[in-house]
Amino acid sequence: MAIITLTTDFGEKDHFAGAIKGAIYSELSDVRIVDISHSISPFNISEAAYIILNAYSSFPKGTIHIIGIDSELNPENKHIAVKLDDHYFICANNGIMSMITTEITAEKIVEINIHDKIETSFPVLDVFVKVACHIARGGTLEIIGKVINTIKPIKNLTPFVNDERNQIIGTVIYIDNYGNVVTNIKRKFFETIQKTRKYEISARSHKFNKILNKYSDVVNFDIEESKRNDEGKGLVVFNSSGYLEIAVYKSNCDTVGSASTLMGLKTMDTVTVNFLPIHSPVKTLTNQV
Amino acid sequence: MAIITLTTDFGEKDHFAGAIKGAIYSELSDVRIVDISHSISPFNISEAAYIILNAYSSFPKGTIHIIGIDSELNPENKHIAVKLDDHYFICANNGIMSMITTEITAEKIVEINIHDKIETSFPVLDVFVKVACHIARGGTLEIIGKVINTIKPIKNLTPFVNDERNQIIGTVIYIDNYGNVVTNIKRKFFETIQKTRKYEISARSHKFNKILNKYSDVVNFDIEESKRNDEGKGLVVFNSSGYLEIAVYKSNCDTVGSASTLMGLKTMDTVTVNFLPIHSPVKTLTNQV
Amino acid sequence: MAIITLTTDFGEKDHFAGAIKGAIYSELSDVRIVDISHSISPFNISEAAYIILNAYSSFPKGTIHIIGIDSELNPENKHIAVKLDDHYFICANNGIMSMITTEITAEKIVEINIHDKIETSFPVLDVFVKVACHIARGGTLEIIGKVINTIKPIKNLTPFVNDERNQIIGTVIYIDNYGNVVTNIKRKFFETIQKTRKYEISARSHKFNKILNKYSDVVNFDIEESKRNDEGKGLVVFNSSGYLEIAVYKSNCDTVGSASTLMGLKTMDTVTVNFLPIHSPVKTLTNQV
Repeated sequence: MAIITLTTDFGEKDHFAGAIKGAIYSELSDVRIVDISHSISPFNISEAAYIILNAYSSFPKGTIHIIGIDSELNPENKHIAVKLDDHYFICANNGIMSMITTEITAEKIVEINIHDKIETSFPVLDVFVKVACHIARGGTLEIIGKVINTIKPIKNLTPFVNDERNQIIGTVIYIDNYGNVVTNIKRKFFETIQKTRKYEISARSHKFNKILNKYSDVVNFDIEESKRNDEGKGLVVFNSSGYLEIAVYKSNCDTVGSASTLMGLKTMDTVTVNFLPIHSPVKTLTNQV
Repeated sequence: MAIITLTTDFGEKDHFAGAIKGAIYSELSDVRIVDISHSISPFNISEAAYIILNAYSSFPKGTIHIIGIDSELNPENKHIAVKLDDHYFICANNGIMSMITTEITAEKIVEINIHDKIETSFPVLDVFVKVACHIARGGTLEIIGKVINTIKPIKNLTPFVNDERNQIIGTVIYIDNYGNVVTNIKRKFFETIQKTRKYEISARSHKFNKILNKYSDVVNFDIEESKRNDEGKGLVVFNSSGYLEIAVYKSNCDTVGSASTLMGLKTMDTVTVNFLPIHSPVKTLTNQV
Repeated sequence: MAIITLTTDFGEKDHFAGAIKGAIYSELSDVRIVDISHSISPFNISEAAYIILNAYSSFPKGTIHIIGIDSELNPENKHIAVKLDDHYFICANNGIMSMITTEITAEKIVEINIHDKIETSFPVLDVFVKVACHIARGGTLEIIGKVINTIKPIKNLTPFVNDERNQIIGTVIYIDNYGNVVTNIKRKFFETIQKTRKYEISARSHKFNKILNKYSDVVNFDIEESKRNDEGKGLVVFNSSGYLEIAVYKSNCDTVGSASTLMGLKTMDTVTVNFLPIHSPVKTLTNQV
């Protein structure tokens, strides 16, 4: 059975996502529709790129991903379908796919050209669903589009490294549900620059010199539970998707606070890693927010 | 396979929607349950009416729609099941269906009368699910209810037109996820009154004399992208459901703002269209918020 | 077809829930995944316990429930799988299951011990999904874990009764989507203590001496509808899950207000029931907020 996933900025309330599902079931009786997210911030291409990149590969090969963000057709915003890693993606050519394509080369990209047959002010419903169902029925990309070779990039995908290679300047690309602050610095990239050096990570006035293996490594389990005071402590980890993340232990934006709220960090802010000369002493830093 | 959709004000957090789904799967092993929305504002009949009207027709004929808003049974709030346009709707008789029935005549309406067999404080779970599964198994409406002929109306469904037919006074009926302000003025209604006349649309102190074909028509693509300043511009379109909508280009309530936040427009506010005498000059209006 | 439900604090936006679903479909082609909630407050064990308790029993026997809250493995937070009431639950041993197990005895509890084969920083994806799919394929709990006999409790599960048995001191355990204030005082418990006595229920400065059968019992239907003023009235009911609940008629946290917002009640607050000596007069109380 074909799987079609949905990633949009339609929100949880409006009828848009429901209408999309109805339209798919009207075309295909035997299909599985899976919501990835409808809560992307409106028109936020970077968020959508991060979410689809980190969700898609859990799905079986052959899955078709509809991404409905900023998808109104206009002279600068064409519709594309992409085959990559044996998955299919249908979206506007507005940068959403560039985060995935920096990691994995697309097998095929087509600019969708079935619009002359469709009058629409809701292209996700009228165009993307049609394309998705065409693919689900085994149709090829060439039938619904014209092969193109490049897609529109987004900025700040990769962190900056200075010439001396002792500094990484990264960018906050996502704030998650726990208020954790996700940067564009990936583990492999970090380790390639780091080699064996010690480091200091700076975000605004907050500094860290340790990357934990997991969030609860901030806890000293030798201390009796009632005497601990770990909730609300700042820490740095590589998150489950492999990105350097500034977090707060057991954070909750509404109660104890989060890395985002307590440290005042938001999307597009800078996070810097300074690597220290080998053998230099590191002064002990307090990671407490 | 039968399709049952859910439109409720249960919210995303509580166990109510989950329990409903469990109850349906307990009755029917071969059924497809589709969430339309669980984020209707609590007890907001008008929102529910707008959402189900604009979602239902994308689904295949025969789909069963459960609408769980303000559904506690009491002397003034009976439960009904409606067959209309080959779809089935199960809800309280509180006005939710009146928006659809002004457009399409119901084939059959029954007042559900199986309550004597059911003791419940959660009628969507205990009554609506039973009725939905009865219909999904091919049962008729007469078995679970008594045929009635009229249903409860809601107010402000249709805009007012003055005797001179040079003014439409509409009402804001919905604010969508982008903060776009949806009025009750439908395209066909507008065009019937307009004929070839120019017009001025007023909402609070904001005035517009053009209805765009799509949101991005507000952009002048002849200007170089980096020199444009279109995000945040106010505009008017007929939205994908055919309603006159006041919008802001690439709006986001949390960042650039939206028609609702920037123009201070909310549900039940008035939007007026004044048609100008043919050949009268229109002064150029700035649509910039 | 196996049913796997998901109850998490992942939120509606992030990729986590989508990735979980993809991972399940990658393991099992014939399975039904049902979202119960992804909007549990981050790390809020009590909320999760309340929601899963009140949702699970609507599902068919044999359903597998994944609960992803505070699930990082550490010396004090092991993973468990529980068979109970012919349902399966997979979660961290952090108290989530103790609300169910005070009502129904677990048939079997195992501490999951497949972690040596799995390197993970996302245990719900890498461990819980594996266990759920193992159970869905008919596997036994003993293969993926070691039998244990007790699980970690949470506090405030049961209300306090004084020695004279004329007072119940309960706790607010949940605030629902309507801002209704749910206490830990269950109907059966209340009635066992009450016998035939009258009572006064106190929450902060608000007092009630009547528990309604349903919300709309607060309305006097003999008064003409346009002359009534019932929206916003405070009231007490046993909710559809059987808990004593302080509510506001047709509440909406954003508009008319709710029991939580209007009375300033929040989770962990105290709600007291004082039983009056039989035949004592009760002064009439105004329940109006």
